Amino acid sequence: MKTTIGVIGATGYAGAELVRILAGHPDVALTTITSRQYQGTAISDLYPALRGVVDLVCETYDPAATLERAEVWFLALPHKLPMALVPDMLAAGKKVIDLSADFRFRNQAAYEAHYQPHSAADLLPRAVYGLCEVYAEKIRNADLIGNPGCYPTSVLLPLVPLVKNGLIDPATLIADAKSGVSGAGRGASLTTHFCQVSESFKAYKVAAHRHNPEMEEVLGDQAGKPVHITFVPHLVPMSRGMQTTQYTSLTAGVGEGDLRACLQAYYKESAFVRLLPPGQAADSASVRGTNFCDIGLVVDEHTGRVILLSAIDNLVKGAAGQAVQNMNLMLGLDETAGLLGVPYPV
Amino acid sequence: MKTTIGVIGATGYAGAELVRILAGHPDVALTTITSRQYQGTAISDLYPALRGVVDLVCETYDPAATLERAEVWFLALPHKLPMALVPDMLAAGKKVIDLSADFRFRNQAAYEAHYQPHSAADLLPRAVYGLCEVYAEKIRNADLIGNPGCYPTSVLLPLVPLVKNGLIDPATLIADAKSGVSGAGRGASLTTHFCQVSESFKAYKVAAHRHNPEMEEVLGDQAGKPVHITFVPHLVPMSRGMQTTQYTSLTAGVGEGDLRACLQAYYKESAFVRLLPPGQAADSASVRGTNFCDIGLVVDEHTGRVILLSAIDNLVKGAAGQAVQNMNLMLGLDETAGLLGVPYPV
Amino acid sequence: MKTTIGVIGATGYAGAELVRILAGHPDVALTTITSRQYQGTAISDLYPALRGVVDLVCETYDPAATLERAEVWFLALPHKLPMALVPDMLAAGKKVIDLSADFRFRNQAAYEAHYQPHSAADLLPRAVYGLCEVYAEKIRNADLIGNPGCYPTSVLLPLVPLVKNGLIDPATLIADAKSGVSGAGRGASLTTHFCQVSESFKAYKVAAHRHNPEMEEVLGDQAGKPVHITFVPHLVPMSRGMQTTQYTSLTAGVGEGDLRACLQAYYKESAFVRLLPPGQAADSASVRGTNFCDIGLVVDEHTGRVILLSAIDNLVKGAAGQAVQNMNLMLGLDETAGLLGVPYPV
Amino acid sequence: MKTTIGVIGATGYAGAELVRILAGHPDVALTTITSRQYQGTAISDLYPALRGVVDLVCETYDPAATLERAEVWFLALPHKLPMALVPDMLAAGKKVIDLSADFRFRNQAAYEAHYQPHSAADLLPRAVYGLCEVYAEKIRNADLIGNPGCYPTSVLLPLVPLVKNGLIDPATLIADAKSGVSGAGRGASLTTHFCQVSESFKAYKVAAHRHNPEMEEVLGDQAGKPVHITFVPHLVPMSRGMQTTQYTSLTAGVGEGDLRACLQAYYKESAFVRLLPPGQAADSASVRGTNFCDIGLVVDEHTGRVILLSAIDNLVKGAAGQAVQNMNLMLGLDETAGLLGVPYPV
Repeated sequence: MKTTIGVIGATGYAGAELVRILAGHPDVALTTITSRQYQGTAISDLYPALRGVVDLVCETYDPAATLERAEVWFLALPHKLPMALVPDMLAAGKKVIDLSADFRFRNQAAYEAHYQPHSAADLLPRAVYGLCEVYAEKIRNADLIGNPGCYPTSVLLPLVPLVKNGLIDPATLIADAKSGVSGAGRGASLTTHFCQVSESFKAYKVAAHRHNPEMEEVLGDQAGKPVHITFVPHLVPMSRGMQTTQYTSLTAGVGEGDLRACLQAYYKESAFVRLLPPGQAADSASVRGTNFCDIGLVVDEHTGRVILLSAIDNLVKGAAGQAVQNMNLMLGLDETAGLLGVPYPV
Repeated sequence: MKTTIGVIGATGYAGAELVRILAGHPDVALTTITSRQYQGTAISDLYPALRGVVDLVCETYDPAATLERAEVWFLALPHKLPMALVPDMLAAGKKVIDLSADFRFRNQAAYEAHYQPHSAADLLPRAVYGLCEVYAEKIRNADLIGNPGCYPTSVLLPLVPLVKNGLIDPATLIADAKSGVSGAGRGASLTTHFCQVSESFKAYKVAAHRHNPEMEEVLGDQAGKPVHITFVPHLVPMSRGMQTTQYTSLTAGVGEGDLRACLQAYYKESAFVRLLPPGQAADSASVRGTNFCDIGLVVDEHTGRVILLSAIDNLVKGAAGQAVQNMNLMLGLDETAGLLGVPYPV
Repeated sequence: MKTTIGVIGATGYAGAELVRILAGHPDVALTTITSRQYQGTAISDLYPALRGVVDLVCETYDPAATLERAEVWFLALPHKLPMALVPDMLAAGKKVIDLSADFRFRNQAAYEAHYQPHSAADLLPRAVYGLCEVYAEKIRNADLIGNPGCYPTSVLLPLVPLVKNGLIDPATLIADAKSGVSGAGRGASLTTHFCQVSESFKAYKVAAHRHNPEMEEVLGDQAGKPVHITFVPHLVPMSRGMQTTQYTSLTAGVGEGDLRACLQAYYKESAFVRLLPPGQAADSASVRGTNFCDIGLVVDEHTGRVILLSAIDNLVKGAAGQAVQNMNLMLGLDETAGLLGVPYPV
Repeated sequence: MKTTIGVIGATGYAGAELVRILAGHPDVALTTITSRQYQGTAISDLYPALRGVVDLVCETYDPAATLERAEVWFLALPHKLPMALVPDMLAAGKKVIDLSADFRFRNQAAYEAHYQPHSAADLLPRAVYGLCEVYAEKIRNADLIGNPGCYPTSVLLPLVPLVKNGLIDPATLIADAKSGVSGAGRGASLTTHFCQVSESFKAYKVAAHRHNPEMEEVLGDQAGKPVHITFVPHLVPMSRGMQTTQYTSLTAGVGEGDLRACLQAYYKESAFVRLLPPGQAADSASVRGTNFCDIGLVVDEHTGRVILLSAIDNLVKGAAGQAVQNMNLMLGLDETAGLLGVPYPV
């Protein structure tokens, strides 16, 4: 008997990607999708690629009528909305994976400084940060996941093992991140207009991005002390994908071999982290449509810095794919179930 | 026991797409891939997306050593090369699906007028043109398939039922076709340079494309008399996808309802043809990465013409996907096996 | 003393392109730009490329305060708005070039059938359709120009000489047109979202586009009898540019030489029409940012059809460039003034 | 009487951009263009945008026949070729602007370590590094210019004033640079294939780029001591443009106001450097086709670092535009002559 699944907010890019993955997942049954804006509309009318493949129709989320239709609920909503829905879901014994920022923080003050007052702060200690490769054990026992942002995922996966093991100096963290346009969401805006994006490359929210505290909480947790990171996101004229280049100083005596050994050991059981051989840079195109995170590294001998290069698909490992990976862990399924289709070569 | 499969010419775009589909196919085992240029190189070094997923290494095709490794062979080579390899394959009892033009023609003279002398012309009557929705019965019994070109597939699928049933005037066929850049192949050339393609839209080989005789042979077969088509291909600044708009005059008394009924009846058992409701135009993005052919139509009442709109992915339904669909038919498998992954919403 | 110029609606793509051309024009002085939405904002804050180059600030258009600041007014507004403003402008002795559809039609009924009731219909006989190469004489003496749409410009320039001289059969006109995204305007919408446009090619408003009657009025004028054209526009994943491929039957006895001679004679004094040599197809990239219209042609001997290929920049020859060309004619300036910068090679 | 100009290597992207700018320059006459590969071909056949606008035909460069045709020669050739041609040019009294690396270095050993033995090393002390805003005085008196690379230009312009004035710590320089595809040249290669570039973002030559020593020589010159910079270039799926984000630690006591005042003072006479107001990030699209360098900056208070953001067009300020700016200085013309066309808004 397959586990029943619902997706709230199924029509944004992350929601539709959840629908894609869950509809093809061998061990679960997607029974319900909801949308305030598109109630009554078939998802395949919004995303014609799905015509004849996924025939679900968007409903309004109404706990009385809808909640019992699924054992696991994914929320792909703007932050602030999930905190109003999650308490009832947990009270009804559901498992919840929230893709917004609402349950990513242990530190209520940090959340409230960057977002707004939290109406379900009592649940924060119960929520687990869903960075699967780092917190798998906690995730297996959780019923509430704060699914990581795309930027934090691409920054943290290369960084966590090195910080945890003291190979790099946490006072020197700099992350230069680049995202495809789908990261800005499906809402129409001048920012995402084809003519504004084409032939444009630029930074935005320089050193002021909301993802900073999310990264710093995890890094502080790993370092055992407060950590600051300089983080600058950029917008790339492409639909999907994210590449991050990080610059940090090595601890005295550490060489490239130590770094590679550390990452290899940390990720030796991880199906979705691919450590690249020397000379290969992580390319967003190589992880497009997949749940992989590719990681490369180069030591700049002149300066004693390591350059860490990582690539993910912002909608998959950076959102819907990692959310399903969290679900797999929570349900005791194979961590990779539904997530290992053969990637497109181009 | 899975049927064993080999792909000759696995490193071009169509070849790599064959590798993708076959590696994920539940009923066959891809045992061998070959490449003259990349002998000894892992396919995942050429297409890093495949790293950790497909670990095959390219070999040189050497019949003595290689032929017995597979029961079915796909050839994804430039035309002229397959005609030298196929006779021995058939003699050894293999099934062969050739993606080049070498075995697409019944009419040797038409082939030779547009390509070169045919060294295996005796096999032409034995070969079946692999347009699956039209020639499924013959394909099931064939051991040699000439897999259709991408342009002919996108032109013929909307046209064949209407020509066959006499609903349109075959003296008035005009096809305006548009292809993504992958149709030009993986070879480096100025034509495919990013800076030449970006912000460029243009026709090429106007009314002089080699695909004309291929289309005209099928259309003549359906019409029961010789047919000419005016065909103009264009290059679109996108990687994958093909959209074709056709203009043709209706037979007296025929209306939109007749056309829709005809197409619906013809394709009622076809999993891969999606007839679009009125008001929807076929979009290359909606079939990207899939084996679907979307078909829309509009009647221009002022002029008595029908406008037929079709979209395929040039590398899937236009090449590798249709080739695997042919294999499924030849092996008695479900026609859709390995070809129905849930499409990406964006 | 330079002629003073105002642009109403300067912040859309056509308006901003007018600002670009007029700011660099040697014989006029751009004194006033207006915008309802961006009143008080510098144009260079909306289009940062213009920072330090064009320092005008958007005002609200208020006839009492603004009208006397310019001798020539360009209107780059949605249709329906210009018809309310133009009568007062003409009454004040201004010259007016309207980029909307409001003054493109002689036939009030045709306008009203596709747009809305016309509140200044008495001005329609006074307005001249600003297709410069065709109606130059009338334009020189006009004080009100209905500037052509981009699609009609690309369709009509290759067609008019051939229809006028009877070389093609006006009952067989088919135009398959393709436009870059800027043609949809600067307004945010899902249609222009980068992720919807990228890897997408599709038709829209099939055989139902508002530009049909605009083209048919001119073609009927040239043919001396009513003419229908089958017109299908498509959206191309690029910012600027338009390419049109037309299919029409030759009059008996007409050959490629006759067509070329006709076009050459018609355009021999035209600086902006470039007739391409045999074998060259018109490419949107080759006219990007320019006021050129490139025209190529191929005769399909099998079917007695000619294929006409034309390319323009939808924002220049298809909008702002042609508007300035009209202004040059109206003011007795060199027709090419301000319009002949050396194009970018890529 | 206009100064006569020749361009050697006119058919690559930088060469063609030189042709564009020089053909529109009011004070010079472009008399000669050369190409080994395209001898006898009109430049407008290679770049059809130029048809009817620039009618020069490529010749072979032959000093005996060609040298006297121009007073100023631009060389847009791969490095190693210019060092063989320049000595004769100087001996004949010509002014020379070389766009390759051959004359960018004062330090022969640094050049030879990254390129090859230098056959005209005696000219290195005579050559001036053509970073116009920094070395204008020397350039005015030079007859041989080593025109800067695109990456060094985008890195050095924001950095030089701050290093020179001791506001930042030169031991902490990190530059994360991103370039459009035209930077890879016009030669066909898999790297520039549309299907490889589209949806791809990746680093290359990580911390190992040849531009490092070029930057370090200038920075050392400004700092008065040897300087290392960690430099990582990336490839962006766009044709033109370059954006660089730099991270460096502030000298104790320095704040954002000091940095802005320093840059403002340094560039107060510079027509091509636009210092952006707080909150605006440099965007490659805003300088496309222009000779501008836009510079923005943000101080990250948490870490005491400044983030410097710069954008140029790699083919203009990064190559041909700066070369013409150098020529203007050498000839005593207005520094901006031929370089101030109104930019395209989109």
